[in-house]
Amino acid sequence: MSLTLDTPLDMHLHLREGAMLDAVAPFSAAAFAGAVIMPNLVPPVDSLERLRWYRREIARASQGQQFTPLMTLFFRNYSAAELAEAKPQIIGIKLYPAGVTTNSAGGVANLAEADETLAVMERLGIPLLVHGESHGFVLDREQEFLPIYARIARQFPQLTIVMEHITTRRATELLDQHTNLFATVTLHHLQITLNDLAGGLLDPHLFCKPIAKRPEDRDALLQLALTAHPKLMFGSDSAPHPRSSKEGAGCAAGVFSAPVALPALAELFAQHGALGKLQAFVSDNARRIYNIAPPPKQVTLERRRWVVPARYGDVVPYLACSELAWRIADVQPA
Amino acid sequence: MSLTLDTPLDMHLHLREGAMLDAVAPFSAAAFAGAVIMPNLVPPVDSLERLRWYRREIARASQGQQFTPLMTLFFRNYSAAELAEAKPQIIGIKLYPAGVTTNSAGGVANLAEADETLAVMERLGIPLLVHGESHGFVLDREQEFLPIYARIARQFPQLTIVMEHITTRRATELLDQHTNLFATVTLHHLQITLNDLAGGLLDPHLFCKPIAKRPEDRDALLQLALTAHPKLMFGSDSAPHPRSSKEGAGCAAGVFSAPVALPALAELFAQHGALGKLQAFVSDNARRIYNIAPPPKQVTLERRRWVVPARYGDVVPYLACSELAWRIADVQPA
Repeated sequence: MSLTLDTPLDMHLHLREGAMLDAVAPFSAAAFAGAVIMPNLVPPVDSLERLRWYRREIARASQGQQFTPLMTLFFRNYSAAELAEAKPQIIGIKLYPAGVTTNSAGGVANLAEADETLAVMERLGIPLLVHGESHGFVLDREQEFLPIYARIARQFPQLTIVMEHITTRRATELLDQHTNLFATVTLHHLQITLNDLAGGLLDPHLFCKPIAKRPEDRDALLQLALTAHPKLMFGSDSAPHPRSSKEGAGCAAGVFSAPVALPALAELFAQHGALGKLQAFVSDNARRIYNIAPPPKQVTLERRRWVVPARYGDVVPYLACSELAWRIADVQPA
Repeated sequence: MSLTLDTPLDMHLHLREGAMLDAVAPFSAAAFAGAVIMPNLVPPVDSLERLRWYRREIARASQGQQFTPLMTLFFRNYSAAELAEAKPQIIGIKLYPAGVTTNSAGGVANLAEADETLAVMERLGIPLLVHGESHGFVLDREQEFLPIYARIARQFPQLTIVMEHITTRRATELLDQHTNLFATVTLHHLQITLNDLAGGLLDPHLFCKPIAKRPEDRDALLQLALTAHPKLMFGSDSAPHPRSSKEGAGCAAGVFSAPVALPALAELFAQHGALGKLQAFVSDNARRIYNIAPPPKQVTLERRRWVVPARYGDVVPYLACSELAWRIADVQPA
């Protein structure tokens, strides 16, 4: 049994830089036609010069595989001229509230001060991608941010707003309340809850931001994905850290899922009799929402068992040592 | 400024065995007049022979310091004759639902099957100490167990039941609803929430079972402790693990607080203007609830700053590298 996906896209991806970029980019480039590249390097990608450098780095690290990096800038208050010049180079601008996740210290401290830039983005048609968490209690952060999404959606009705890596039932409910609000969801948030992180032994490799929530949250996200809700896109949020940053006295947030994302999604959708919805979830919805047409690529998955390695280099992947029922069999430019 | 505590007791303590026992027992023996010793060794302490051996081991490891181990047996279905023989040797029997925490695999799988033993314990006046967690979602486990506490309290009205290491507001509310229901609370559950474990970097040294809960839970526990609620006792649940078991790919549950417990409690109670309640919280309540009179010991704390070491041997303590305002200045047999 096999399944061919047309131009699968990962709409939320961390590729890092330097040696880590070299180590992880080939996995995304092998499985996906393109990906939305997060800009939270140190310092952040917040100029066109740095963006062009990063795009070249990604192309180099992709080792000749056909792969389209859909670049983002790190949100700051850009001038109208900067935004106009940037527009052809980017798929959107990523906004981090200051300090909520890995390398977000330079993020926005006061969201009200973003309005001027948001108004220009709306006028120019540049989407806004948001890490939507407050600074409150860890389980409440996404929920506390939802009114901010609603406020921005109302205030800038022509602005395309993407709630990145949603993790709660409440966020899924907000999706239908504003026409200009969209969302990505990760593979792991379709599968795990806080129980998987901390119910038995504590598993640092399942620690991520936003933190995995309750079973009813996971179930609401899964329901939306399996029906390929037209406003929902797949975004792995694959975020590699070296083992020393995960298995120490203080563990960094991030799950490295790039090497397993498509096979695990195929298995998950097949288990629920929803394989027919995978194409929309991993590609069609994103192409329609962003109005993009990246160079096509056919990725064929086949039903054949394999065991996920314990490590890829120095990085422990999501589902390490697990057996998966599907694997990538063939990749062809269309 | 100083404060002398009369016969401070730690009503919930894990001392382990072998080299770990040798490493950690001196800290409890230095600060406390006695402690309730948890029986979850491998295999568990579930015979008088094994209990006598463990008591001798603890005495040896206490290095001549005056310290009274208040021994417990691991719950199984004991005969009436076994219980009658055990009674003079123990302060109570500790019940673990199977598999809920470190070394609890041999615990009770079906609580209804415990009734016969509970009836004999009630008749003989042997207290029941319970790790009250269900096997459900990690944040709900204590709350889901509360109806079981209520059922046992009603069914065995003369049985003294101690809800060990409570972590939720709901548990504090249950305390007043049954005259034969009591509780211990740890130092760390008076101070931390899930935010401290997982709100920034993930901190494996704050991972414990039951897991730390929400701010409103912590606040309810703190309120009860600062007023020295007459049915609440201090129990550190100090539970050492070697660093390799905490800082690896799977982190064991347990916080090692024995070396800092009394100083940190003094600082916490002083901060809230409640130093006058500390004696009841760390000793008087326990002596009255259990009707015990362990050999007295005067422990004097003084207000003098010190920095908690990064490690004690191979164990990272609670509040490692933090500055504490109080320290133990003097210990005297009464």
